[in-house]
Amino acid sequence: MANPTAAMLVIGDEILSGRTRDANMHHLAGQLTARGIDLKEVRVVSDAPSAIVDAVRALAKAYDHVFTSGGIGPTHDDITADCMASAFGVAIDVRPDARAILAAHYDRRGTELNAARLRMARIPDGAELIENPVSAAPGFTLQNVHVMAGVPSVFQAMVESILPGLTGGDPLVSESVRVDLGEGDIAGPLADLAKALPDLSLGSYPFQTDGRHGAHVVIRGVSAEAVAKARAQLLEIFGEAAA
Amino acid sequence: MANPTAAMLVIGDEILSGRTRDANMHHLAGQLTARGIDLKEVRVVSDAPSAIVDAVRALAKAYDHVFTSGGIGPTHDDITADCMASAFGVAIDVRPDARAILAAHYDRRGTELNAARLRMARIPDGAELIENPVSAAPGFTLQNVHVMAGVPSVFQAMVESILPGLTGGDPLVSESVRVDLGEGDIAGPLADLAKALPDLSLGSYPFQTDGRHGAHVVIRGVSAEAVAKARAQLLEIFGEAAA
Repeated sequence: MANPTAAMLVIGDEILSGRTRDANMHHLAGQLTARGIDLKEVRVVSDAPSAIVDAVRALAKAYDHVFTSGGIGPTHDDITADCMASAFGVAIDVRPDARAILAAHYDRRGTELNAARLRMARIPDGAELIENPVSAAPGFTLQNVHVMAGVPSVFQAMVESILPGLTGGDPLVSESVRVDLGEGDIAGPLADLAKALPDLSLGSYPFQTDGRHGAHVVIRGVSAEAVAKARAQLLEIFGEAAA
Repeated sequence: MANPTAAMLVIGDEILSGRTRDANMHHLAGQLTARGIDLKEVRVVSDAPSAIVDAVRALAKAYDHVFTSGGIGPTHDDITADCMASAFGVAIDVRPDARAILAAHYDRRGTELNAARLRMARIPDGAELIENPVSAAPGFTLQNVHVMAGVPSVFQAMVESILPGLTGGDPLVSESVRVDLGEGDIAGPLADLAKALPDLSLGSYPFQTDGRHGAHVVIRGVSAEAVAKARAQLLEIFGEAAA
């Protein structure tokens, strides 16, 4: 059976303007790969309702899971929850269980649960809460969309909260070989090997260090044995240029 | 007049698998913002022809410019040029001027221009070459799509090659204020100010350091004077919590 598929939707003007460098994509990609869920696409969109709604609809239809990051805080530019409700045509309001989580959290800190903070308890109808052990305000899963915070520490904690509950597939195993030859010299033999091993994916990622050209050849597949065998073949093909 | 809009298409399994952390998005975002071209969307797709073709068609239709990174080297997994030709329904073949650039480059290095390297001279009909001062193999512009390499040093050099030729808009000016209050306390007054200043965009980006909560409030706009004035208002509103 094929692995479950996934997409990620990153919501945030600050990434598109170059102010902030996204960190969540790389984290999620590694976590999903380890669990056998294939991340097939990532989209980064601005804080505009139509951009968010259109993207989540398209991705939710095309993939088994969608993971979003960003836009679920208390300020006026946090519009993700409303956009999700709108994308799926459901109502949204403050939910008692989410409110109770926030009330307990702010009570412990001696902080007022004011109107702005209460916005973080607005949850679309039919969603399940995602636990946030870092700062309490929950994320939520609505149908096949998992809505999480943009702050990396909170995003990572929320990913940890939901991943064990998702059905994974066969995790992809990968090994790599460093070849100290220009990609143009690697390309021919590599293409032949890739053709001979249709169950594996062979990728070539060039680098340049101190004026010397080389490439990391990465072999990916479900069978660790087949991957290891392909690695041995690469070492043989490229001889002393490979390591 | 509104600024030109842009999208970026990052092509590469290695980013979706978590093996590599993309660096080109952040670079391009900063460059475009400085030039007054608004980056509205980024998509990361896998090395699958249908994924690349569908994404580039959708983005080329929706935005003034599309910038792609990745998949234009000499190996079997470098399929971007063919996908672009297919997306726009044009032919692709080795082009004499691109071939001459490669021949001169490899001649200087005493390296053979073999069949694999010659693939990098395959250019879709009607495209203009993009200069690559780092490693010679050119990118190209086909209609409103700028096709560039994935290796960061080459990507950056290609961006530098084309940006001066693109019509920019009014560059966005931004200033930020650090407010040492929880976002829940910032949200109310910030929403009021955002409402009063419809020509500016006010974003709140929370952080947590040593258990203390705060947020960077970023003001963006075309008028440096208006942005500076808004910053002064924020400093007044949040008093000694702001800096």
